[in-house]
Amino acid sequence: MRYSYICEKKNMDLLSVGSVAFDATETPFGKTGKIVGGAGTFISLASTFFQTKKGLVSVVGGDFPIQTLNTLKDKGIDISGVQIKKDEKTFFWSGKYHNDMNSRDTLVTELNVLEKFDPILPSSFTQPSYLMLGNLSPVVQRKVIEQLTVKPKLIAMDTMNFWMDILNDELKRTIGMVDILIINDEEARQLSNEYSLKIAAKKIQNMGPRYVIIKKGEHGALLFGEGKIFYAPALPLEEVFDPTGAGDTFAGGFMGYLSQFDQYSFEKMKRAVIYGSALASFCVEKFGTQRLTEIDSNDLKNRVDEFYQLIEFK
Amino acid sequence: MRYSYICEKKNMDLLSVGSVAFDATETPFGKTGKIVGGAGTFISLASTFFQTKKGLVSVVGGDFPIQTLNTLKDKGIDISGVQIKKDEKTFFWSGKYHNDMNSRDTLVTELNVLEKFDPILPSSFTQPSYLMLGNLSPVVQRKVIEQLTVKPKLIAMDTMNFWMDILNDELKRTIGMVDILIINDEEARQLSNEYSLKIAAKKIQNMGPRYVIIKKGEHGALLFGEGKIFYAPALPLEEVFDPTGAGDTFAGGFMGYLSQFDQYSFEKMKRAVIYGSALASFCVEKFGTQRLTEIDSNDLKNRVDEFYQLIEFK
Repeated sequence: MRYSYICEKKNMDLLSVGSVAFDATETPFGKTGKIVGGAGTFISLASTFFQTKKGLVSVVGGDFPIQTLNTLKDKGIDISGVQIKKDEKTFFWSGKYHNDMNSRDTLVTELNVLEKFDPILPSSFTQPSYLMLGNLSPVVQRKVIEQLTVKPKLIAMDTMNFWMDILNDELKRTIGMVDILIINDEEARQLSNEYSLKIAAKKIQNMGPRYVIIKKGEHGALLFGEGKIFYAPALPLEEVFDPTGAGDTFAGGFMGYLSQFDQYSFEKMKRAVIYGSALASFCVEKFGTQRLTEIDSNDLKNRVDEFYQLIEFK
Repeated sequence: MRYSYICEKKNMDLLSVGSVAFDATETPFGKTGKIVGGAGTFISLASTFFQTKKGLVSVVGGDFPIQTLNTLKDKGIDISGVQIKKDEKTFFWSGKYHNDMNSRDTLVTELNVLEKFDPILPSSFTQPSYLMLGNLSPVVQRKVIEQLTVKPKLIAMDTMNFWMDILNDELKRTIGMVDILIINDEEARQLSNEYSLKIAAKKIQNMGPRYVIIKKGEHGALLFGEGKIFYAPALPLEEVFDPTGAGDTFAGGFMGYLSQFDQYSFEKMKRAVIYGSALASFCVEKFGTQRLTEIDSNDLKNRVDEFYQLIEFK
């Protein structure tokens, strides 16, 4: 019974770590109240499009809707690593996008449960094949790595300017422990102090990661590694409704795709970039996580085909 | 004698129209004195990498170095359409690039001979297979089209924000007469009044051109047409020394590549975009036209291979 063997295998294919949170977003198209967001949520939702064994490590307050966690569970995410702090409040972020949708102002950041977040991995979480560290304090990210009992095939991490500003040494230490850093162009420039993304990627590789992905929003994404570069386009969209979570969705799609394989390769990573980009292109079509919960694997397949056509070359 | 037939055929493969000028450029890397520039110069130089019969229509003053025109002639450009106004001065542009190299301030624009430029096509220039209209007044561009005695296979044109600001009706009239508009993202947005480049391209197609190329600088270029989209990356460069002329070089490479064929197609246009991008990536490596005069067809072939590797997909 091969199927049952796959379903019951002890080790996890993909472990994701990241915030599960409330967001309030304002874009030129409208304004939300408090809706569900957070890197861990977007990463996990994106990863559910791949039939692998997955788990999430995060923390929420007593105010977080339990049905949202159950939705993740129903979609195949093991949420036993999500701590619920009944007497505390969930992380809250509020932001307003400018007209070009490429920049935003943070209006409110309430760390709440994230302030003293101590990630605790259930024993069944300690041997993942792939690990995706969503944007969190580099100290928290490192604590997750330190609890692993077997070295994963690939550890990916995201981060942001904020940590470069206030915890740069801790950040560098954590970056030194991962295989692939997934960040945006602005962050890559700040981290490396280089304007050229090609030189920035080299400098980041010298910090430890063998691979670097630089996300350029509407301009696509660059994958650097093994002395090669792959440039994946972004799908030209008629409308970007809400960019929140697009980067996390990309990362979840990228690692979700790879987690299907016992061995990764640069060629597989190229495909993973396309899958991540395709999922991100859905994410921005509606507020928050809404679009990701509406689409199915067939929609994803069609969108991936659109990407292939965009760069197809005879 | 097939070869001699090809060499002696009466009609021109590619006719280019554009300024031959002096530029003075300042970038974070340095500052030039008056050096040779102009859209017509960059377009022509880029087109010389393709073995077709070419001509240039332009105008210079008595101060322009005749050896520069002879260099173009030696490279196979018929310069009998370049008027020399002995008692006037050559068009002069001076600009300063900002640190990000994506934006610049114009410091000086002296139209000089361009002010009353009346393009006159020698009779051997009136039946080109392909026509590239470099950035000039839309009235001048139209005068060129009106002198043709046979409809070209493909008319391409470039333009800029300046003409949208002061001669928008004339511009729209000329755009309505061409097959392909080649402009940058900022110009596409201003012309269409749309932020989404996908919608912008549709609106521009409704103005007449069946094809639209939107150049995005370091982010590559988009080709729209026949209901399809092709997204060509830009090569991630370690250093952009001087972006002046990159867009014209792209256009010259694009049309130069196509001018080798009796029939164009969307597939050939994709390759043409890659050749244009490859030539533009050389252009920015040194000031002005210098790099374009140093490289040979082997350098171009290697650079094109780098582009293919960048988007290659198994």
